[in-house]
Amino acid sequence: MSTYTVHFLPADRSVLVDDGATIAEAAQQADVLITNLCGGEGVCGKCRVQVTKGRAPAENHAKGFFSQDQIMKGYVLACQTEIHDDLEVVIPAESRMDGSKIMTSGESQSLAKMDLNPVVKKFYLALSAPTMEDNVPDVERITRELRKELGWHTFDIPLDCLQTLSTKLRENDWKVTVTVARHGENYRMLRIEPFDTARSHYGLAVDVGTTTVVAQLLDLNTGAVLDVEGCHNSQASFGEDVISRVIFACGKGGLDPVQNAVVKNINSLIGTLVKKRGISREEIEVIVAAGNTTMSHLLLGLTPCYIRLDPYVPTTDEFPQIRASEIGIRINPRGILEVMPCVASYVGGDIVAGVLASGISEQEAVKCLIDIGTNGEIAIGNRDWLVCCSASAGPAFEGGGTRCGMRATDGAIEKVVIEDGELHYETIGNKKPRGICGSGLIDCIYELVRNNIIGQDGKFDRQRKDPRLSSEDGIPGYIIADAGETETGAHVVITESDIDNLIKSKGAVFAAIKSLVDYIGLGFDVIDTLYVAGGFGSFLNIPKAVAIGLLPDIPLEKIKFIGNSSLTGARSCLLSENAFETCLNISRSMTNIELSTYQPFTNEYIAALFLPHTDGKLFPSVNYAKR
Amino acid sequence: MSTYTVHFLPADRSVLVDDGATIAEAAQQADVLITNLCGGEGVCGKCRVQVTKGRAPAENHAKGFFSQDQIMKGYVLACQTEIHDDLEVVIPAESRMDGSKIMTSGESQSLAKMDLNPVVKKFYLALSAPTMEDNVPDVERITRELRKELGWHTFDIPLDCLQTLSTKLRENDWKVTVTVARHGENYRMLRIEPFDTARSHYGLAVDVGTTTVVAQLLDLNTGAVLDVEGCHNSQASFGEDVISRVIFACGKGGLDPVQNAVVKNINSLIGTLVKKRGISREEIEVIVAAGNTTMSHLLLGLTPCYIRLDPYVPTTDEFPQIRASEIGIRINPRGILEVMPCVASYVGGDIVAGVLASGISEQEAVKCLIDIGTNGEIAIGNRDWLVCCSASAGPAFEGGGTRCGMRATDGAIEKVVIEDGELHYETIGNKKPRGICGSGLIDCIYELVRNNIIGQDGKFDRQRKDPRLSSEDGIPGYIIADAGETETGAHVVITESDIDNLIKSKGAVFAAIKSLVDYIGLGFDVIDTLYVAGGFGSFLNIPKAVAIGLLPDIPLEKIKFIGNSSLTGARSCLLSENAFETCLNISRSMTNIELSTYQPFTNEYIAALFLPHTDGKLFPSVNYAKR
Repeated sequence: MSTYTVHFLPADRSVLVDDGATIAEAAQQADVLITNLCGGEGVCGKCRVQVTKGRAPAENHAKGFFSQDQIMKGYVLACQTEIHDDLEVVIPAESRMDGSKIMTSGESQSLAKMDLNPVVKKFYLALSAPTMEDNVPDVERITRELRKELGWHTFDIPLDCLQTLSTKLRENDWKVTVTVARHGENYRMLRIEPFDTARSHYGLAVDVGTTTVVAQLLDLNTGAVLDVEGCHNSQASFGEDVISRVIFACGKGGLDPVQNAVVKNINSLIGTLVKKRGISREEIEVIVAAGNTTMSHLLLGLTPCYIRLDPYVPTTDEFPQIRASEIGIRINPRGILEVMPCVASYVGGDIVAGVLASGISEQEAVKCLIDIGTNGEIAIGNRDWLVCCSASAGPAFEGGGTRCGMRATDGAIEKVVIEDGELHYETIGNKKPRGICGSGLIDCIYELVRNNIIGQDGKFDRQRKDPRLSSEDGIPGYIIADAGETETGAHVVITESDIDNLIKSKGAVFAAIKSLVDYIGLGFDVIDTLYVAGGFGSFLNIPKAVAIGLLPDIPLEKIKFIGNSSLTGARSCLLSENAFETCLNISRSMTNIELSTYQPFTNEYIAALFLPHTDGKLFPSVNYAKR
Repeated sequence: MSTYTVHFLPADRSVLVDDGATIAEAAQQADVLITNLCGGEGVCGKCRVQVTKGRAPAENHAKGFFSQDQIMKGYVLACQTEIHDDLEVVIPAESRMDGSKIMTSGESQSLAKMDLNPVVKKFYLALSAPTMEDNVPDVERITRELRKELGWHTFDIPLDCLQTLSTKLRENDWKVTVTVARHGENYRMLRIEPFDTARSHYGLAVDVGTTTVVAQLLDLNTGAVLDVEGCHNSQASFGEDVISRVIFACGKGGLDPVQNAVVKNINSLIGTLVKKRGISREEIEVIVAAGNTTMSHLLLGLTPCYIRLDPYVPTTDEFPQIRASEIGIRINPRGILEVMPCVASYVGGDIVAGVLASGISEQEAVKCLIDIGTNGEIAIGNRDWLVCCSASAGPAFEGGGTRCGMRATDGAIEKVVIEDGELHYETIGNKKPRGICGSGLIDCIYELVRNNIIGQDGKFDRQRKDPRLSSEDGIPGYIIADAGETETGAHVVITESDIDNLIKSKGAVFAAIKSLVDYIGLGFDVIDTLYVAGGFGSFLNIPKAVAIGLLPDIPLEKIKFIGNSSLTGARSCLLSENAFETCLNISRSMTNIELSTYQPFTNEYIAALFLPHTDGKLFPSVNYAKR
């Protein structure tokens, strides 16, 4: 069999592969990480790469993903392109997961060894017909067979399932498919079908984020991710951030529309997913959803009002298993919805899912998860102990609260470099710039301070002569993209007050990490791995995040960006009933430190309002040239 | 389509019906109850009515049921007569199921010793408000308090209860009343009210009998029976006995009306009870119902079809706890319904309740329960073992299958004595006699054989001169009440074929007892107490029941008539969650002997077709004077 060499850029790594392997497989072999949401099905279009040497035409799969121009330039989807030639392949910024392991890092530790044992199971049973010697009740004929598979358990049966059970058993000569869900320590029969439908077995993992809602469709027979869809959370129209949504929901008649908005989002994502895969909604029998505590309350229609008021009390931290139809979610009418358990009002099911996905609670080594969004949530621990906290970071890293901030979508500046007085930027999707997303803002601040354009206090050097310096209402700013280059026709600019907001945000996150580490009586050096999750898009420049003082100054190889760990955790729970059990243990055993009443936090916060920090000894590797 | 008015007398109720409807259907629509044994097949002849205005000839179906004179007077069978005219219809006394008194008594020894620990409990909790030092989720604030009362348990919370929980907690300064139901091995919160409502705490025990439905209203704070109401089971209009109802329910669209009929009965009883006690339906939060396996299936709307077909398999023997509202029962919308577990298709929750109520499963002494209805069910055992069986006794003891048989309601002859050639009888309610109920029939047979009017083979002494001897179509009979004394203006008579039927019925019951005692390898002398339950009215003459060979000949002081033990058992389960647990244990541990495939039963049955028995040694104390 012929073999070919594939050389990946910018990683500068080569591998030898067999004829017919895909570029994605070659990349994996080369340990070059390419973004991929759909699991290699050619449907998400995230694994776009550019073939710069050798022949590997995009052929059929390119349609809809690439312009004619891009096809001419050699753009293809890595997962769909077979190798029949020596190739040079460039991984463009938007497809790269540079330097940072992703979701799969959490997966490789916990998912890989995880047995496929989905929270909802289907069993095809060919039962023996009753005789006078064996005339147990019909239900028992099923349960005694199920006990052979599941061990001794009681089986809860909803009335509507029981009412037609006898008829269904006899409809096809005692051959039935029984759908069973884990329910507490026992099981619940969801559905009995008089045919073998066990092959059709689907579930949905949903990350209900404040900003975006992402749904993954899974084949529960194989564990494969079939497809993924995401959309903005329509609750945004009732308030961009959690607090304003809670205020709206707690007004008269406010809860229903806020709940319905996200239910509609989920229904719409399901609609797209089933259409794309050619299945019906009724074939989906389970959803596992993860969200922060407020999102979980709003999804289920629970009063969220006391989450935001001192002393910050949620209605509950563990949610009942319900039929998805009870809240209007349109899957199988008897399909269930599980919502991941929370720890406290500001440490939600998304963090519990993240702790699960990153495997923190499994090993002896101390690991830490930082999820940076409007709130920065931090969990640290190992298999023996878990501590967490949450700090309000403000919306800066998600594109809010800054003049030209935007979410990590097409046209967002996500990378900035200032070298020898020249500014270079890259945008998501290589579109004309429309604004700056979180990762771009981190770059901006780093580059501005490194080039002495701002001081370590975040203030502009007003003496400096620089054509990019601007001023509006007396507030100085710096032009990142000139009006002539942008989509909007206006400058994309970062102002001194933007920088001030960002310093407060990163200060809050860092102070939270520092307070937590101090609280447990350890130093940063005890951290074996630091996982960073959050809505930064596919990219976060970790060295720069350390350099501005957002992340602690520990060896860079210990820091890993893992993207949407909430979704990964929800998926694990869908695929493993033990994982769901683990999540309950995580949420019950995790100690939450309430930073708002923890005095040292305030001091840490004030000390962190500097780039990288007022105490330089905390960032020994960061040395800005003094101006 | 034409419609016609049907006016029923003496109920004085009118309905409008479509052309072609039957009089039976019109009666049902008018809520006028007509006796019906065969389920509308035109074979039992019990639904005779008199058309006094309008045209509705008896035509073909009258033959064999009516004399020419009756046909001339407008007598027809309600189930066979289509309506094509405006009619006035008189329901004669013998066809009426009027608001007569239903037997509602039933007591037991084991209740007194029972701790009051109702299956649904209410707790008034004055909780502390949350603080920053104590900001557990709202649910946990309640559950940790409940655990002080109930021990460590998980608490299941339905979504609708959870949704408003936070608001309710704060509505009256953290003072709430929480209603909790036992649920499997744990508890379920049913309801949270922001006031102290613990004083108002009611439950309902219901005996769902094939013939009658009886409901007791209980104060769950004291265990006191506040009131009791009973009515005929309206399912009778779909068939008098279990089998004909099952056949109707298994026809197309048949299950719903049969289920609705009994639900309507229960709702109506509840309506009367709450009105009498001046409480609201919403104050009732729990119902425990006991019935035979078919009645339990029909109440819950479960397919009953395979109960009556070899190999006699019910859908289930344990029923899920549901909200009563799920099947349309109108108590508190969150109130629950528990249905007592069954043992097999023909040993139901009524027997399990009876075993509980009679305390059979509690002591070392061997005790036996005989419940005599259309089926005779027998349970025997002690705290270590329990065996049961069921035998089809026919409807004779419930007033069916005999010429002048009737249920134990007003006007039924329940006591008969023949002394020195004089016959004395007593009727229920001291009303003019309309027929004879089960206890009256037992008396009749005993007195007839004791006075040598019939032989021990049940045959009349045709040589005898007695003005009470009658004959119709060559079948001899004995006039119990003369036409001049009765409500109906006809003789109340017992015929030789009635006696034949009664001997078969008593023979089946006795053979079942004998087979069961033999099966376990013991004799009658091992029986410490024999409890007799059944719908005999308030009275059963035990010595006479022994003397005709219905009950075994053991010392009379060992035999106790306990009336409606099913209701008593249901009440125990309402008042004690341990009692419900005990019932599950009883139903799971009881061994059911299938008599239909147990050869010795057939021999015992044939041997028992004599008064008292072909083997006189089995009834040493019974000595009829030989004629």
